[in-house]
Amino acid sequence: MKAEIIAVGSELLTPDRTDTNSLFLTQQLNRLGIVVTRKTVVGDRNDDVKDAFRQALGRVELVIASGGLGPTQDDLTREAVAELLGRKLVRNDAVMKHIEERFRRLGRTMAEVNRRQAMVPEGAEVLENTHGTAPGLWLEERGRVVVLLPGVPRELMALFTEQVAPRLGRFAGATRLFYRELRTAGMTESEVEQRIAPIYTTYSGVETTILASLGEIQIHLRSWSEDAAGTERMLQEMVERITLALGEGLFTTNGETLEEVVARDLTMNQATVSTAESCTGGLLAQRLTRTPGSSVYFLGGVVCYSNNLKTGWADVPASVLESKGAVSAEVARALAEGIRRRTGATLGIGITGIAGPGGGTPEKPVGLVHIALAGAAGCSERVTRFPGNREQIRWFASQMALDMIRQFFLHGGVLHGGVPHGGQAAERRDAIKAAERSNSANRRDVDSGGR
Amino acid sequence: MKAEIIAVGSELLTPDRTDTNSLFLTQQLNRLGIVVTRKTVVGDRNDDVKDAFRQALGRVELVIASGGLGPTQDDLTREAVAELLGRKLVRNDAVMKHIEERFRRLGRTMAEVNRRQAMVPEGAEVLENTHGTAPGLWLEERGRVVVLLPGVPRELMALFTEQVAPRLGRFAGATRLFYRELRTAGMTESEVEQRIAPIYTTYSGVETTILASLGEIQIHLRSWSEDAAGTERMLQEMVERITLALGEGLFTTNGETLEEVVARDLTMNQATVSTAESCTGGLLAQRLTRTPGSSVYFLGGVVCYSNNLKTGWADVPASVLESKGAVSAEVARALAEGIRRRTGATLGIGITGIAGPGGGTPEKPVGLVHIALAGAAGCSERVTRFPGNREQIRWFASQMALDMIRQFFLHGGVLHGGVPHGGQAAERRDAIKAAERSNSANRRDVDSGGR
Repeated sequence: MKAEIIAVGSELLTPDRTDTNSLFLTQQLNRLGIVVTRKTVVGDRNDDVKDAFRQALGRVELVIASGGLGPTQDDLTREAVAELLGRKLVRNDAVMKHIEERFRRLGRTMAEVNRRQAMVPEGAEVLENTHGTAPGLWLEERGRVVVLLPGVPRELMALFTEQVAPRLGRFAGATRLFYRELRTAGMTESEVEQRIAPIYTTYSGVETTILASLGEIQIHLRSWSEDAAGTERMLQEMVERITLALGEGLFTTNGETLEEVVARDLTMNQATVSTAESCTGGLLAQRLTRTPGSSVYFLGGVVCYSNNLKTGWADVPASVLESKGAVSAEVARALAEGIRRRTGATLGIGITGIAGPGGGTPEKPVGLVHIALAGAAGCSERVTRFPGNREQIRWFASQMALDMIRQFFLHGGVLHGGVPHGGQAAERRDAIKAAERSNSANRRDVDSGGR
Repeated sequence: MKAEIIAVGSELLTPDRTDTNSLFLTQQLNRLGIVVTRKTVVGDRNDDVKDAFRQALGRVELVIASGGLGPTQDDLTREAVAELLGRKLVRNDAVMKHIEERFRRLGRTMAEVNRRQAMVPEGAEVLENTHGTAPGLWLEERGRVVVLLPGVPRELMALFTEQVAPRLGRFAGATRLFYRELRTAGMTESEVEQRIAPIYTTYSGVETTILASLGEIQIHLRSWSEDAAGTERMLQEMVERITLALGEGLFTTNGETLEEVVARDLTMNQATVSTAESCTGGLLAQRLTRTPGSSVYFLGGVVCYSNNLKTGWADVPASVLESKGAVSAEVARALAEGIRRRTGATLGIGITGIAGPGGGTPEKPVGLVHIALAGAAGCSERVTRFPGNREQIRWFASQMALDMIRQFFLHGGVLHGGVPHGGQAAERRDAIKAAERSNSANRRDVDSGGR
């Protein structure tokens, strides 16, 4: 079965917004064995909307649209589709009641405009929206299906999952999409490509996509097939070969986030972690606590922008701050060890760096970040110069910190390249220089000192 | 002048990739006074590509396409467009030479497939690609223009700027786009709509879009006009009327983020802030430090998940934690006052709540969040029950906390609904109950206590 996706909204024709709902919809449709053959974005103009639906219905059996179901004047998907299909818009009492009740529950008066949302094309099936006022609509016309969903992602997702997917089940054929998602940290796109191209090019039935996002490379394997067992077997074999080729950089073969992997490592090892951040400003703590149940392993974190608070909250000696500067391996280490000691956590992480755009010097340029991981056996450090803008630098740093936790457990809880507490890491200056010469986000880390 | 954008590429019809080139193209076209009226994504199939161009050329004077100009079999934009326009593909010697030279310069042998890229529809103008092998193409057909660009963003951007924009100059009329972006916090979409509809509906020359995103509503005003002075005057008048209608909920009339507004408020007032977060896990600190130069006003923050750390880092009395529970107005207040005192900041913020999905009880359900803002004159509190999932609840809470800082300065640095230090806020239980009954993100705040 083939489908087209139409996104309705003038804001999606501006430089500010892009249609992201179609990514979710495509994923869900593919799972049901439905291929997306075209995506269209039109503005809030009746003729344009009608035109888009007319053409799409001339090509495919299923048209899914998002947006234009709200209460305001420029929400005209309902009207346009009703006109196109030659159906009247009629007030639906159940929808009206649902909207009124929603407002009552929230203790608020319903605005007059919300009545528009209860207008439904004749013969349309109403899909209840448990997250908002605009219901979804399911229309069938001469064997073709039109599904209208609100543009708010949260509402669209819930409606699709709860109402649309079950109804589409009966259209799905025997061909299904089989899918694997692998992810790596600390590798570049071309490194990944070079290692796995000799493998994936031998599987002609599998579509392989390598995607670079901030601080991680994803490998997506897709195969459309009627033969579930055979395809699963082939994908499994492929995943195993790729896993061998990628080594320790690979952190998941089933699409988990790095946060999820780290959360599991910490939980399974009954370990706890605390953070002392400077340039990342709380981003690492926020990512560590994104996973439900994080209170099991996350004890606490401090964001110490000022030198005073680095000393006050993580016992960084004032003399070290003075002699080495706030952005230094020594301070990262003191932050990690200090916060670990203060909170009694299994692991402590310290991050200090220059996120920019200001504050860089020739010796300590924007993007330079020191990260330390302290455990009972000692402390591991990395220094890197990340590329990109403030937001990217902060993200790369938090990503590397998470990956250091992952690597810690990968090596059985041993600190990689670690030095004993109080040990003097040698050649730190060279490490920084090396990091500065390179300009890549990943694999540029230089483990300082060490055995 | 109107334009449509077509993105060619099967990878853009998967769940992984979205067409982002169109955002850049739209921005550039708008600057030239050209409106984008539709965007289409099609896969690498000759018929689909031809069909998309045929329809677009039936509607608008300018069609800009990206992708499908590479050397491989599935790069078929050249062929499809040549067929559609009834033109032959001919080898262009200049392009061939450019490609050969590029390979020679990189010290590599040209693959045979690259010859495809030198095939050009008869009569097409070749746009030299300084960043890659695929040249852009400019075709005119009965007063309509077709521009073909490679899909690699870097190449597309350079080609557009260097080659396409100057050529489009002669088509661009005197008409330009004039633009304003207003944003509100703490209001719902329908509230905003109701207040400003009587205003914007009277300006027929302005396209008004109301956009809801997490915790804020944006209002975009767009007007295409030849009359710069008149249009600027009209937009200014409109902005002033909308400003009056929205009142304190409005936080910017020029598209600033809430973080930026709060950063400016703090900086201009030479005020500093510190945070003590529980359920938001560092998100507030991260948002406060997202703006460059944040070290001027942000002193530090703690993320205290455990009761011990709430006491250890922000002096929350163990007795209060015991009697009121960690999620309570008293603890939020103690966190705010404690972190303020500890860091010596002008303002302290405390957040405690239940982000879920677990941990809720009938008395303290998932989504319940207490936020307190402490200043020299006392403490202001809000209690809210936010809807949504863990990530959304955390975001809403950070948004409300930022908005409380903004409101503080809006009222000349006076704590709204605040009580003096040590004062007992009355009827807190009722406030919580009221918040629980409501289920909306915004305007559900109940200021506890009072003078």
